[in-house]
Amino acid sequence: MERMDKGMPFLLRYENVAWYDNGAVRILDRRIYPTECSFVSCKTHEEVAQAIADMVTQSAGPYTAVGMGMALAAFEVKDKSKKEQFEFLEKASETLATARPTTANRYRIITERCLEIAKNALESGACPIEAVKNTTIESLNRRYSTMQIVGDYLNDLIPENGTVLTQCFGETIVGTLARAAINSGKQFRVFCAETRPYLQGARLTSSCFADMDFDTTVITDNMVAYSMQHEGINFFTSAADSIALDGHIANKIGTFQIAILAKNFGVPYYVTGIPDRDKKTKDDIVIEMRPPEQVLSCRGIRNTLPNVKAIYPSFDIVPPELIAGAVTDKGVYEPSMLGSYYDSEVKTFY
Amino acid sequence: MERMDKGMPFLLRYENVAWYDNGAVRILDRRIYPTECSFVSCKTHEEVAQAIADMVTQSAGPYTAVGMGMALAAFEVKDKSKKEQFEFLEKASETLATARPTTANRYRIITERCLEIAKNALESGACPIEAVKNTTIESLNRRYSTMQIVGDYLNDLIPENGTVLTQCFGETIVGTLARAAINSGKQFRVFCAETRPYLQGARLTSSCFADMDFDTTVITDNMVAYSMQHEGINFFTSAADSIALDGHIANKIGTFQIAILAKNFGVPYYVTGIPDRDKKTKDDIVIEMRPPEQVLSCRGIRNTLPNVKAIYPSFDIVPPELIAGAVTDKGVYEPSMLGSYYDSEVKTFY
Repeated sequence: MERMDKGMPFLLRYENVAWYDNGAVRILDRRIYPTECSFVSCKTHEEVAQAIADMVTQSAGPYTAVGMGMALAAFEVKDKSKKEQFEFLEKASETLATARPTTANRYRIITERCLEIAKNALESGACPIEAVKNTTIESLNRRYSTMQIVGDYLNDLIPENGTVLTQCFGETIVGTLARAAINSGKQFRVFCAETRPYLQGARLTSSCFADMDFDTTVITDNMVAYSMQHEGINFFTSAADSIALDGHIANKIGTFQIAILAKNFGVPYYVTGIPDRDKKTKDDIVIEMRPPEQVLSCRGIRNTLPNVKAIYPSFDIVPPELIAGAVTDKGVYEPSMLGSYYDSEVKTFY
Repeated sequence: MERMDKGMPFLLRYENVAWYDNGAVRILDRRIYPTECSFVSCKTHEEVAQAIADMVTQSAGPYTAVGMGMALAAFEVKDKSKKEQFEFLEKASETLATARPTTANRYRIITERCLEIAKNALESGACPIEAVKNTTIESLNRRYSTMQIVGDYLNDLIPENGTVLTQCFGETIVGTLARAAINSGKQFRVFCAETRPYLQGARLTSSCFADMDFDTTVITDNMVAYSMQHEGINFFTSAADSIALDGHIANKIGTFQIAILAKNFGVPYYVTGIPDRDKKTKDDIVIEMRPPEQVLSCRGIRNTLPNVKAIYPSFDIVPPELIAGAVTDKGVYEPSMLGSYYDSEVKTFY
């Protein structure tokens, strides 16, 4: 099968995201890349779900991981009766879909698709493992095709020789934006907010842009206002973990305050992604509160005395009035108009 | 000599800040406290200046360190002729005063005072080392007395059962505010922005408040807007590395954006400290650009690929319109009225 990740940075090569082979799913450990380049090998689909919960992979990585996890589940149960295989795969689908609460709706679309493919394969006597793996790769290819459209739209919006601030790690959009810029000859600098506590901006986003030879600068999360004032930032963009149809979006903690600062400095904020059909308003967005240990430490080293507390809201919500536009595969929407996205032909990247 | 640090947290005990004894200045290494509790021992005043430049101590710590560094300089040259001692101490005063550019004016007040005391001691046949050390302790006592007034004013402004956000490590004001709150029976929660890249908020400020039994929570620097929206923060305060007479203040990078966010959420921002007489406007404030290595790493661990850049502005400048008041030893000033601070009797904490 032809793959759509040609010319992408190391991080986005399919086999580095999450890959089923020979009874195991191998996932690049994004918690420590690029300080170390190592892979977590999962021998059960529960280990894949745990790896997602532990953020071994994040951003769009889990979409691949849950699909490959379903292939692994099919391997785990391959010697059982058809009935047992059905039941096992149904349970695996639920386990993988609910690995993280905020994005459960998105994971489930994939796991249920894989479940259906596996069942069809079983019914027809084909190998469910290969069928699920191929389905996952096809899904990745579809996502890359769709997100290339988004990347092209986003690239069109960026000022020539501009300075683009990003937050966290937008995964596919980072790759497709970079490809769009290179193909169109557009030049811009990239500033990456480091995105504590997991440092996805410093570790992952900057690695991708630097791999593609962009002029790439990392700032700590408290340098945003300074950089908008002194470094010529004239564009802010992020992906979203949820896009509600009322124009509210949820993304990695910190996006909300960057959006407020962007408004303050007259910097437009464009969010990228496909609206969530099942999230009518912000009230349908669940903010995952993660264990506070990562906030109390940096790279595994404790920063505080034992009696100090922390909070760790994984995401925050940006209201539509702070968003210049939502860049989708159907074009750029005024956030307040996102409700009309599903009025036209449905097209989704899963 | 009686000391004014009684009942203060560990970090603020004079002997832990910077202490001359027997041919060495011992400085608590604030870069790693409280993960490790270790001291840097300086055998020359140049090593003291280097320790300040390397941020072994920061906030108000260097005021003590430069004084103790002058005592060490007097020790280094004690066996030379009076003329050579004078010349050596003059050079040492300049070396210590200019250890960091943004605060050189403040360090110089202390080093020149120590120089004068040392010269007087030499002229009168007394021991310049002891004289300079005692002068430094007296200066610390004066600062604590003055900053207790500021701490008392600040405590008065904080809402009962409020939630106070702080940035970086205000050193003396942290101790005197805590003492004022305890003495007056006022209760409040403290939120500390961790303050990357050196994490002074997580490591130092939270340690002091937790040592004094306050309900203390650390957040990463990108959780400020979220915490203002969801955690009931109703007061923001910071110290300042410079307070210009036109109402602009310079403080640790990130203060500017928190001040913008505070304005956005209707949270008042009170800065504490004594205005800088020699800084008429913001144009007199020098922003120190530090080497970017710390931004590219966390606790010594590199976060990025080698070809990724970073910037590290040590401070940013908050304009007067974002400041509810400047809390000084003479009361709380509208920032635009700070020019009148020196109209009345001059009183300084050095």
